[in-house]
Amino acid sequence: DYTKLDKLIIGVCGGDGIGPMITGMAQHALEALLADKVKAGKVEFRVIDGLTIERRAELGCAIPPDVMEELKQCHVILKGPTTTPRKGDPWPNVESANVAMRKALDLFANVRPVKVPELGIDWTFYRENTEGGYAVGSQGVQIADDLFIDFTVATSQGCERIARLAFDYARKTGKNRVSCVTKANIIKTTDGKFLDTCQRVAKEYPEVEFDDWYIDIMTAKLLDEKRRRDFKVVVLPNLYGDIITDEAAEIQGGVGTAGSANIGKRYAMFEAIHGSAPRMVQEGRAQYADPSSVLRASVMLLEHIGEIELANKLDRALDICMFEEKKVVVNGRDTGATAQEFTDYVLETIAKL
Amino acid sequence: DYTKLDKLIIGVCGGDGIGPMITGMAQHALEALLADKVKAGKVEFRVIDGLTIERRAELGCAIPPDVMEELKQCHVILKGPTTTPRKGDPWPNVESANVAMRKALDLFANVRPVKVPELGIDWTFYRENTEGGYAVGSQGVQIADDLFIDFTVATSQGCERIARLAFDYARKTGKNRVSCVTKANIIKTTDGKFLDTCQRVAKEYPEVEFDDWYIDIMTAKLLDEKRRRDFKVVVLPNLYGDIITDEAAEIQGGVGTAGSANIGKRYAMFEAIHGSAPRMVQEGRAQYADPSSVLRASVMLLEHIGEIELANKLDRALDICMFEEKKVVVNGRDTGATAQEFTDYVLETIAKL
Ligand SMILES: CC(C)[C@H](C(=O)O)[C@@H](O)C(=O)O
Ligand SMILES: CC(C)[C@H](C(=O)O)[C@@H](O)C(=O)O
Repeated sequence: DYTKLDKLIIGVCGGDGIGPMITGMAQHALEALLADKVKAGKVEFRVIDGLTIERRAELGCAIPPDVMEELKQCHVILKGPTTTPRKGDPWPNVESANVAMRKALDLFANVRPVKVPELGIDWTFYRENTEGGYAVGSQGVQIADDLFIDFTVATSQGCERIARLAFDYARKTGKNRVSCVTKANIIKTTDGKFLDTCQRVAKEYPEVEFDDWYIDIMTAKLLDEKRRRDFKVVVLPNLYGDIITDEAAEIQGGVGTAGSANIGKRYAMFEAIHGSAPRMVQEGRAQYADPSSVLRASVMLLEHIGEIELANKLDRALDICMFEEKKVVVNGRDTGATAQEFTDYVLETIAKL
Repeated sequence: DYTKLDKLIIGVCGGDGIGPMITGMAQHALEALLADKVKAGKVEFRVIDGLTIERRAELGCAIPPDVMEELKQCHVILKGPTTTPRKGDPWPNVESANVAMRKALDLFANVRPVKVPELGIDWTFYRENTEGGYAVGSQGVQIADDLFIDFTVATSQGCERIARLAFDYARKTGKNRVSCVTKANIIKTTDGKFLDTCQRVAKEYPEVEFDDWYIDIMTAKLLDEKRRRDFKVVVLPNLYGDIITDEAAEIQGGVGTAGSANIGKRYAMFEAIHGSAPRMVQEGRAQYADPSSVLRASVMLLEHIGEIELANKLDRALDICMFEEKKVVVNGRDTGATAQEFTDYVLETIAKL
């Protein structure tokens, strides 16, 4: 219970590209919303520098040890997008910092809400966040001249804790439907385990409806205007969660509009679901980056630390700006506002609520 | 070269649920289009019974041996959807017949075209069809009380042949852009191999533009109205091909509207991309099933056997019915036509071309 802490420490880790700028905006909004507690010394924002691709490349590691030290001293973390090197990039092949942080802090649940009020869409994805093709050591092997293998991993514990979190959320919010998405007809052992576990856990939540889908057909169902409103809470293994939440975010208005909560037993990290957009920075357009992803992530951060009322206000203000007044820079509807102007407008909107 | 055969044998394998009915429609259309050659004994349709879930369950195999024998005597195969048992089904857990057939006949390329003329969409997916999580023997293992593993497999040969086919197609059709989709930032060994191979093959096709995407962002890009027209030919590992072609088909009007060609060196099999819809049969609505998926598959069959003109006519007629006159039963636009009425209308449309 964070409300009982003497002082809550919120780490702000800017990351790469547009990251420092948009997380700066989220920090600005959170500082305004939590102003009383900041003044009273009950909440501290701690900016953590050094999670940059340059330093990571230099040190040859996903997360520099000093950054990891600092992260562990925070109660919750707000994180900007970080660059993951791809083939042809100037950086050596260091691991994804998101993935490394999820593993290091055992952030086993990646919660990604997506909503489009005008379409009746209100989805919350519970993506398993540490297993599947993302598991530690799962780097694959070449076992013959011409045979390459990767591994997908599942544990009962890993399946069970994400399933329970999804069902608890469905029960608590009265959403009362959980849909499990796998490819258990092909990826039989691990996805089979995931599906089995969800089916078993479902029995303990008789008031929550349960169904299951294959990932291929699910990507179609999300576009089916008649059926998609029926989905509420969706629980799925790591890779499918990665894939389908980008599709869902695009339906909401773009991957730039979706936030995500990475939740563990001890730590929690809140981030945008999109990348660091280095091109925007190179082209001098960083100030126009859409901060709504990290602001949505901030809603979840506020909820997580028990500031339910503030969370609801920020969420409501974002809904107003995004869906009613369409002030946010979403696909093809760029209003030309800078991140700063947009964030200030969100805060003004809250003041009027 | 099929045109040089004394007699071309087209196997028609109805499958389960709505399968026999819709493949019957496709056979009816193909017989009409190929009437001269059928009469002259140059083309024979051979109906192959026995690929039903009941027999497969009874024999405990994916494809009964007698069916496999018959399949191997055909030059090309038209196949209806087959039921793959899921948890809770009355059938024992026999393997997917599609997957078994793809492996047994080494149908390494799954070609899935999707188009929406009014949106400028004209995509052709080249899905690798025998490797990834679908490889033979890739059944996973439990290696400890609480540790489950599945395997993903790639070979150089497997990557290379699908890449070449995609690039050859892009060159031949003048589509001149190939996009590779992987998750090589995480699934490093096998997807890395796939991406490497595509990058290398791309160098041999300097006139074809090449780019690569991660599967998560690709599911969003397919919905991006400004960018998605730029995609032409998309080449991807088995599982991603499975996932993303259902999304693409839904954009076209539903998974019921998309056909697929499974191509190997020796055999070729043409099928719908959707399932057997047992509920439609139970509810007595089978006659209203949409045959456009198998008719689209028949377009590819005609192309494959060298009947380019007939293929173009059938394709054009389907475009007219589907996109211009909207006679086809697509999502939420059910015109109430039966499969027979629709098929006859397609044939009438061809007669008027
Ligand atoms: C950058 C990448 C490794 C990461 C993932 O695959 O999880 C990202 O796509 C995400 O969803 O956070
Ligand atoms: C039925 C299933 C095993 C199959 C697949 O995953 O390939 C299907 O979805 C397809 O796309 O043909």
